[in-house]
Amino acid sequence: MVTNDQIIKFCHDNLVIDYLDVKVLERDAQIILELTVDERHVNLYNICHGGVLTTMADTAMGAACLALGKKVVTISLTIEFMHAVSFGSTIFTRATVLHNGHQTMTCECEMLNADGKLFAKVHAIFFVIETLDG
Amino acid sequence: MVTNDQIIKFCHDNLVIDYLDVKVLERDAQIILELTVDERHVNLYNICHGGVLTTMADTAMGAACLALGKKVVTISLTIEFMHAVSFGSTIFTRATVLHNGHQTMTCECEMLNADGKLFAKVHAIFFVIETLDG
Amino acid sequence: MVTNDQIIKFCHDNLVIDYLDVKVLERDAQIILELTVDERHVNLYNICHGGVLTTMADTAMGAACLALGKKVVTISLTIEFMHAVSFGSTIFTRATVLHNGHQTMTCECEMLNADGKLFAKVHAIFFVIETLDG
Amino acid sequence: MVTNDQIIKFCHDNLVIDYLDVKVLERDAQIILELTVDERHVNLYNICHGGVLTTMADTAMGAACLALGKKVVTISLTIEFMHAVSFGSTIFTRATVLHNGHQTMTCECEMLNADGKLFAKVHAIFFVIETLDG
Repeated sequence: MVTNDQIIKFCHDNLVIDYLDVKVLERDAQIILELTVDERHVNLYNICHGGVLTTMADTAMGAACLALGKKVVTISLTIEFMHAVSFGSTIFTRATVLHNGHQTMTCECEMLNADGKLFAKVHAIFFVIETLDG
Repeated sequence: MVTNDQIIKFCHDNLVIDYLDVKVLERDAQIILELTVDERHVNLYNICHGGVLTTMADTAMGAACLALGKKVVTISLTIEFMHAVSFGSTIFTRATVLHNGHQTMTCECEMLNADGKLFAKVHAIFFVIETLDG
Repeated sequence: MVTNDQIIKFCHDNLVIDYLDVKVLERDAQIILELTVDERHVNLYNICHGGVLTTMADTAMGAACLALGKKVVTISLTIEFMHAVSFGSTIFTRATVLHNGHQTMTCECEMLNADGKLFAKVHAIFFVIETLDG
Repeated sequence: MVTNDQIIKFCHDNLVIDYLDVKVLERDAQIILELTVDERHVNLYNICHGGVLTTMADTAMGAACLALGKKVVTISLTIEFMHAVSFGSTIFTRATVLHNGHQTMTCECEMLNADGKLFAKVHAIFFVIETLDG
């Protein structure tokens, strides 16, 4: 059984997460990633760079796979941006596993603000490189 | 006419690019982005985080749109990872515009090492928010 | 206001839907597409061709946009296949609009069997070419 | 060694290809798929349904994998539509393998008219289910 503390540690093992100041939190027994957009994250339009949101989403999906005892690497990822995430706003994400296969997994995650407004949706395929003992 | 100096400045206006230590270079009159993977970029498997590569690719595609006089925001992006990019390796990317529409543009970019080996390929759709005077 | 009868007619205006024998049904006041896989739909592994499922999904998403009074064309579409859909099985799909923008819309749809098992998930971006009067 | 005759037969094993009247041709020792858009393929805007183009592309990519001795199933596929393919026009496609892995393969294909104008681009990930003897 993988604990939430182990999942939080896993997220921080991606140093880029700390570097970008993405918070990793436990809420209602689930792992949530949170980002407040500052000058490090924005482009010249003063909105969050899509790569920053993708980094956050990819990490959240890897965490969701680990919660099921699977260590994975990303094969492919698609992100759809619906609204610009402006300077100063806070975005939350939590990933869901759609398909928990032996060799591949499919995940998605929604990127929302505190009001539940959807800013981006991400879906990705992962290759399973290790299955942890139950 | 947008100069390469303007495109290089545009890339650096995304502070995350400097923050991640992505270099923006002119080579054969074209803009190339270059990353040497260090401890800031890797995950626990010691390979480059997919979000870092996506950040680099998204910026390169925005630069390719600007070279055609278009300011854009990303609508959707898909990245396919073919090989792990290991610690210490150097990756180059340069984007191509496949479709230069009035309202939307389609771009792709290849992420290669110095030997031309393909590590990832990215495709994205952009929304045109401003067209610069020719 | 667009009626369900108009949406059903719209689906059948795509002759390929009839040609592939996809049913268009109203259930709980919503439009559902249904396919029972036969010899026309399978590949040499006797599973449903991914293009057939994509055709069904793309039509369902166009119908969901029309239900909101928007006529659209597809800009990009991503489908993820989680389980093979074998000969003789029946698949249902119903699309959801994630983002109802003035110029672009984002939709998704799940492809399920009668037990609710998820076989494929599809996301797509649409360009709005006409907005019907409310 | 897989012959072009075997690849052509493989394409036709997808009955939907014949059903949609997609031609499978050998040109310059490579397999090309060709479609002339008629009333079966169009939607109410009189342009080719995206699902028809996806069906053609998915088959072309499966053929490209078979040419390398691999039998595959599609894991995920993304298509980007750049121009409408109008009634009466003819579209050609030929797929390229970008990554020929043991367990997964990455392919792309361009959908062009006879003048080489690009109408759509497709990329997909495949899972290898059988490797034919060399």
